[in-house]
Amino acid sequence: MSRYKELKERCYRSNMEIPEKGLAIYTFGNVSARNPGEDVFAIKPSGVSYDELKPDDIVIVDMEGHSVEGDLRPSSDTMTHAVLYRTYAGLGGIVHTHSTYAVAWAQAKRAVPIYGTTHADHLAGNIPVTEVMSDQMIKGDYEEQTGYQILNALKDQKLSVEEVQMILVASHGPFTWGSTPEKAVYNAAVLEELCRMALFTEQINPDAGRMKQALIDKHYMRKHGKDAYYGQS
Amino acid sequence: MSRYKELKERCYRSNMEIPEKGLAIYTFGNVSARNPGEDVFAIKPSGVSYDELKPDDIVIVDMEGHSVEGDLRPSSDTMTHAVLYRTYAGLGGIVHTHSTYAVAWAQAKRAVPIYGTTHADHLAGNIPVTEVMSDQMIKGDYEEQTGYQILNALKDQKLSVEEVQMILVASHGPFTWGSTPEKAVYNAAVLEELCRMALFTEQINPDAGRMKQALIDKHYMRKHGKDAYYGQS
Amino acid sequence: MSRYKELKERCYRSNMEIPEKGLAIYTFGNVSARNPGEDVFAIKPSGVSYDELKPDDIVIVDMEGHSVEGDLRPSSDTMTHAVLYRTYAGLGGIVHTHSTYAVAWAQAKRAVPIYGTTHADHLAGNIPVTEVMSDQMIKGDYEEQTGYQILNALKDQKLSVEEVQMILVASHGPFTWGSTPEKAVYNAAVLEELCRMALFTEQINPDAGRMKQALIDKHYMRKHGKDAYYGQS
Amino acid sequence: MSRYKELKERCYRSNMEIPEKGLAIYTFGNVSARNPGEDVFAIKPSGVSYDELKPDDIVIVDMEGHSVEGDLRPSSDTMTHAVLYRTYAGLGGIVHTHSTYAVAWAQAKRAVPIYGTTHADHLAGNIPVTEVMSDQMIKGDYEEQTGYQILNALKDQKLSVEEVQMILVASHGPFTWGSTPEKAVYNAAVLEELCRMALFTEQINPDAGRMKQALIDKHYMRKHGKDAYYGQS
Repeated sequence: MSRYKELKERCYRSNMEIPEKGLAIYTFGNVSARNPGEDVFAIKPSGVSYDELKPDDIVIVDMEGHSVEGDLRPSSDTMTHAVLYRTYAGLGGIVHTHSTYAVAWAQAKRAVPIYGTTHADHLAGNIPVTEVMSDQMIKGDYEEQTGYQILNALKDQKLSVEEVQMILVASHGPFTWGSTPEKAVYNAAVLEELCRMALFTEQINPDAGRMKQALIDKHYMRKHGKDAYYGQS
Repeated sequence: MSRYKELKERCYRSNMEIPEKGLAIYTFGNVSARNPGEDVFAIKPSGVSYDELKPDDIVIVDMEGHSVEGDLRPSSDTMTHAVLYRTYAGLGGIVHTHSTYAVAWAQAKRAVPIYGTTHADHLAGNIPVTEVMSDQMIKGDYEEQTGYQILNALKDQKLSVEEVQMILVASHGPFTWGSTPEKAVYNAAVLEELCRMALFTEQINPDAGRMKQALIDKHYMRKHGKDAYYGQS
Repeated sequence: MSRYKELKERCYRSNMEIPEKGLAIYTFGNVSARNPGEDVFAIKPSGVSYDELKPDDIVIVDMEGHSVEGDLRPSSDTMTHAVLYRTYAGLGGIVHTHSTYAVAWAQAKRAVPIYGTTHADHLAGNIPVTEVMSDQMIKGDYEEQTGYQILNALKDQKLSVEEVQMILVASHGPFTWGSTPEKAVYNAAVLEELCRMALFTEQINPDAGRMKQALIDKHYMRKHGKDAYYGQS
Repeated sequence: MSRYKELKERCYRSNMEIPEKGLAIYTFGNVSARNPGEDVFAIKPSGVSYDELKPDDIVIVDMEGHSVEGDLRPSSDTMTHAVLYRTYAGLGGIVHTHSTYAVAWAQAKRAVPIYGTTHADHLAGNIPVTEVMSDQMIKGDYEEQTGYQILNALKDQKLSVEEVQMILVASHGPFTWGSTPEKAVYNAAVLEELCRMALFTEQINPDAGRMKQALIDKHYMRKHGKDAYYGQS
């Protein structure tokens, strides 16, 4: 029996949440999962639609994207995941979707302004968007470069991967992450909802303006950091 | 057996209507319930998602938000509910959601104009929005201050809590109430629908204009007051 | 056994299509049904929500809206239906909903422009909107006057009730009809879809412009009139 | 037993995907299927709603649209399908729907700009729109002329039917195709999603601008052509 059986099951279940939550149709998304400290991760196979996906189809790859276990070719986006896992030891899950509203903001090449507490409960600033990828990066190993495109954006905008767990890749779509694959999927669903709310907010009032800083701080700190008092733990 | 068994069941069922009616995802909402004349109320525990919630998880708290029965920490919004219950003896239920369109209007910091009879069947004026909370209030007991933020808005705008059973907290989202928790959930669902209709109305005709006063009066009075003739009672 | 048993069953089933097709929440709609040539009709009772409605709850009323059979009070909109049935002998069903996009156009007080063949398959011109009701009409028998508001609009705009089976009552919402209650419900669902399509069309291209007349005529005639060749009959 | 039994079953199943995927209501769509090299095709009967459709209702017609097998009249759009099958030997399936957002772009008479990778994964340029049909063509055999309207647009815009598998017929709605009926349905669902994404993109940023050419080429080539590396084959 595979030593990765549990990881593959968990990766499978997280992948199945993508269509269940309406975050993508057909094969338009992928979730990966890593056990903390391990140098392999589990990921969806390429081009397999969710309604045909089985736990045993999940592929185990190393940090160079080479297959360690599994008969199928891993997601074409595998190297994007690998770059992020290699850089951030704390990541346990990564999600890429083509959810409608997050893609629309990514295609619009705009960061999502922080308009209200639903947003501030999850991050304390705008949802970042990367630069458009340079021609040179596109001509390189494209999927690996997508990982660097994300790293560059986080670095340039001085964002912490713990505090900001979602990003829009310009002209492409969203990536989210977390300490577990379940948390990364949660972030993908929250991101889609924040993107819907922000668009409608601007339609109702183009001059709505960013929410005030004191309220951002208050809501973010209710849920994060040492004085958090939301939830049961 | 708990003397609050029935109240907890009813609070549980009303909470479960939130995801069933698509008014919030994950843990983004809470419903409380009070028996008329009692000085305790039932409320959802903090950070428990709807698909894990059980009737026994519901917490009974007093009017200062202290737990009277239940093992879990009550909703972080408990003090907002407490302030409203303390002030208005007639309230039997309060609902807070992050439903998409109501949040968008709250983030846009605009009252929802009364454009048609669907709206006038429920209240005879615009759906009110509070002021943005002052820095001083944010630095106080935030959730309790949210209650006062609502009270201030109702008072400043000379609104009756019986006639106006819904409000948008600026940069945050909707609160609704009623004589029972079921009525408060009904108001939350109606509010979301009115918010959708109002946005689309403005998109179709930015100069639509408020509906005429005589029609507002007629529709509101069909359903409310001593000459109401809608329904079976 | 009631001589109206079959009519009540049919009226019940047509009413149940309203929530099933997402055309209204709670009690926000009503369907009536009449057998051709009869001087009574069946209609939903007032204020009963769809998930509690039973076939025996359906009320039979005469053309003055007086109850002929049934224990419940008929829909508060009964007299609007009565006026239409009295005027047009060919009507076998009438539907009133508060479906989201049709209400938005009604609140915007705009006729829905004929932009494409989906629309022209059903009517050969814009979807009409009534005038806003005068104060005098509002102060009269309001629901009966709503019927006259519809008749006036059809007359003023020289529209045939056979060719145009849907209308928007300004500041209120849609009414549809047909030779059977099933056809009237079909028209309510089609109307909602046409209203969605028209809004998005204008958002994509504010200068889209009405479709050309020759194409309107062609599509309308494919499905209507003596040379129709759509369908199986 | 019919020699076309398998083709009819397959055509039936593909037709049933239209309502299952929310691409049309009632009878607003049709799918046809052809075995490569055969000079007949299977198509939905006219005016039969999806919830009544059975495999045996599917009609087999020749390339002039004459019925070869089946008791029902074939779709009124049969000749549009026939023209495309006659012209392009490689087509195995054609889909026509009235899906909401694709219709809206068709009614807006605008090609859908290529804004992001979801789009570029499927075609390497804008989604084309035909010219409005001339009065003369409308007065001819309308459905056959709709086929020519599509052929003219592909020819005028120098588009390959293998590379571009979807088009918007102006003032009407979408047609999609593929080497199989399943692929044609897939394209219809993808088209609807691309149309939603593009509208929201323009609402978020009217100056979003077409995605850069190098990125279009990269994404299209990941999935198409001899160096494709997406999927399992």
